Amino acid sequence: MKTFKMVRGMRDFLPEEAEMLRLIEDKARRIAQLYGYKEIITPVVESYGLLAAKTGEEVRARMYAFKDLGGRKVALRPEFTASVARLVATTMRNEPKPLRLLCIGSLYRYDEPQKGRFREFWQSNFELIGSEKPEADAEIILLTNSLMKSVGLKNYAFKIGHIGVLRGILSREGLAEDAQNRALQLMDKKQYEDALSLVKDAGASEKCLTLLQKMVKVRGSNIFNVLNEMKKLVEKYKEAYEAVNNLAEILELISEVQKLDITLDAGFARGLEYYTGIIFEVYVPELDIALAGGGRYDRLVELFGGEPTPAVGVAHGIDRIMLALQEQKAPLKFQGEKTVMVIPVSEALNQEALRISEILRAEGIPVEVEVMGRKVAKALEDANRRGTPYVVIVGERELSEGAVTLRNMEKKEQRTVKIEELAKAIRTELH
Amino acid sequence: MKTFKMVRGMRDFLPEEAEMLRLIEDKARRIAQLYGYKEIITPVVESYGLLAAKTGEEVRARMYAFKDLGGRKVALRPEFTASVARLVATTMRNEPKPLRLLCIGSLYRYDEPQKGRFREFWQSNFELIGSEKPEADAEIILLTNSLMKSVGLKNYAFKIGHIGVLRGILSREGLAEDAQNRALQLMDKKQYEDALSLVKDAGASEKCLTLLQKMVKVRGSNIFNVLNEMKKLVEKYKEAYEAVNNLAEILELISEVQKLDITLDAGFARGLEYYTGIIFEVYVPELDIALAGGGRYDRLVELFGGEPTPAVGVAHGIDRIMLALQEQKAPLKFQGEKTVMVIPVSEALNQEALRISEILRAEGIPVEVEVMGRKVAKALEDANRRGTPYVVIVGERELSEGAVTLRNMEKKEQRTVKIEELAKAIRTELH
Repeated sequence: MKTFKMVRGMRDFLPEEAEMLRLIEDKARRIAQLYGYKEIITPVVESYGLLAAKTGEEVRARMYAFKDLGGRKVALRPEFTASVARLVATTMRNEPKPLRLLCIGSLYRYDEPQKGRFREFWQSNFELIGSEKPEADAEIILLTNSLMKSVGLKNYAFKIGHIGVLRGILSREGLAEDAQNRALQLMDKKQYEDALSLVKDAGASEKCLTLLQKMVKVRGSNIFNVLNEMKKLVEKYKEAYEAVNNLAEILELISEVQKLDITLDAGFARGLEYYTGIIFEVYVPELDIALAGGGRYDRLVELFGGEPTPAVGVAHGIDRIMLALQEQKAPLKFQGEKTVMVIPVSEALNQEALRISEILRAEGIPVEVEVMGRKVAKALEDANRRGTPYVVIVGERELSEGAVTLRNMEKKEQRTVKIEELAKAIRTELH
Repeated sequence: MKTFKMVRGMRDFLPEEAEMLRLIEDKARRIAQLYGYKEIITPVVESYGLLAAKTGEEVRARMYAFKDLGGRKVALRPEFTASVARLVATTMRNEPKPLRLLCIGSLYRYDEPQKGRFREFWQSNFELIGSEKPEADAEIILLTNSLMKSVGLKNYAFKIGHIGVLRGILSREGLAEDAQNRALQLMDKKQYEDALSLVKDAGASEKCLTLLQKMVKVRGSNIFNVLNEMKKLVEKYKEAYEAVNNLAEILELISEVQKLDITLDAGFARGLEYYTGIIFEVYVPELDIALAGGGRYDRLVELFGGEPTPAVGVAHGIDRIMLALQEQKAPLKFQGEKTVMVIPVSEALNQEALRISEILRAEGIPVEVEVMGRKVAKALEDANRRGTPYVVIVGERELSEGAVTLRNMEKKEQRTVKIEELAKAIRTELH
């Protein structure tokens, strides 16, 4: 006899939590429907090469990678975007654009377990593929807002930046993409000094270093002030200036449509290497981990062998949203139907109890039938403990007249009801 | 530039298939609700030891097993029951019985890919824990029937046996459990001759071999005839005789409640080692793989360190049910809401288009907004191709009067509608 434990970093969802997770998934599906996104399902196991290609060193080092029994190097997906880009570059390459796709499922990263961070986690992932327009970026942010609102989250705020600004500056200095990636990863972790010394070692000018130093400090909630500051700083950096303009266009589109709580952050970078445009995350005051994150990636599909295809997407951390709602004492609760318990007075009536249960279920009434062979008193105790509002007692005498006893557990009242009227009687009592 | 492929044996579900898979999941959740089962979510990654303990050599050899970055030997779950038994033996050990649990998710086995058999597959798994009574076994079969019926499957039939019959005979001959398991696995693959020679080598008597030879041929749809034949054969084998009696009790309970198409098969064995009682599978004529399989396992929780706990369960192959429905030309189709397309006549009106889209979504109307920057004619072409029934055209002139153009694509008619009346107008037209 041996006790097996759950693997470290993994997680079980007991009924109440599982229900909440499924409810958030349903909300995400509803948002998808309202915005015209179709769900696809991609495998948890993908080729290591695909997942490692553009995901960023951070994530790459923490993948669950292994060889399958056929010797293929595979890994458990740490995010959805690579799989979606694979599909768009292959099977779905002829689908007309724009293509709006949703993925929902579990993902895997070997991170250090901490509050809200498990090694198996759940996301709803929206991708809008084929448009380079700011309307597309705006839509991804607006639908993220709609999801947060629809689950009842309070005080959430968007942190927004544009990877094109920093990349525009670094490119102008001639930094290779690899050095850019490493510098941006350091900035993502707010290790600005390390980032600057890396940029310096890679040959950037003093002027550039000074600019970067100023730029990473530019942030705030007065969006148009921040945008102006950014514009002033990069006036002479064409690519970076265009990036700020793009950011401004997107924010302008959003500004009148929904009033969002936004902090613009010019030094903001995200861990994934594939971003090319706007990037954003969602936070609540109660947690210091992002509840959602996304951005524009215009070169990913191409890198995976497809046609050049602009795209923008977002991943919502379902289990993180769940945690945030719990912290805000606003857990989603499904107003489920109450279950009726059916109890035979003797084992000889088991078959009748099963038959009556099936009749009720066919009428849409949830039924737990007694399967423990307990006496009525014992089974009623159990019904009480579970908060079962109504119990159907199947007895010889009533049955001979085609009837059963319907007991209201709260009022401790009972009456005889004909079997053909039972479903109606329960529905009347329940509502 | 490199093309990455899906890993062999894995599978993508494109929108129509994904929708069907999710619909079957929803049906399974509805059945769970009607029978009083609560959903739990367990991790895809479990310890190898847990998954390998009682799953059977066949499955064990085909697990996706590897070491995680912390050096733990883990595997992707090939089935749900071990995880459920782990939970019942640990976190949920104090939950009152009966405990009715549902799991839905993906599972992994390195099988040879073939029609209906992928290396990632989907199941809804119901477990009724804590009852040793035939009512419990009957419930698991009845709810399986309800699920098959509710998805619209036709001509499905149950294949039923009882592992206690063959085990009872083999135990009486003094065969060790390991030899029993290997013999049963051969029988599971219908390799009866190999099974018999293994039993012979393990020291079974001639009388026993003759009995087994007869027993594995006993099968048929006249349940009570088959039961009588089985009883006659094992009259002098107490354990086996009791197993037949138990099978008879369960089938009797079911017989009057639902008319099921059943083939009883005395030589039936399933690949998993943990079964102790009734075992069953569901088939349709169109496919030679089982759509569902289950049975009683009274010792599993105990083997995983919990209290001795009787249990019975079933796994429904969601993607296999989907394939069966496709083969029967009865694919489940969600009667989804139609999407409306919102098109601005110029880029200057993008923000208005977004704003109007959000207004409609807030009223529950699905909207795809133009994000490609196309001219109206081009966007209307796209709407036509997608079968979008209604298009909202946002133009300067109408907008100045707080209105837009609502176009019926089929009738090629359009009219001006005030924005505040737009949702109502669309709803009226749509229904």
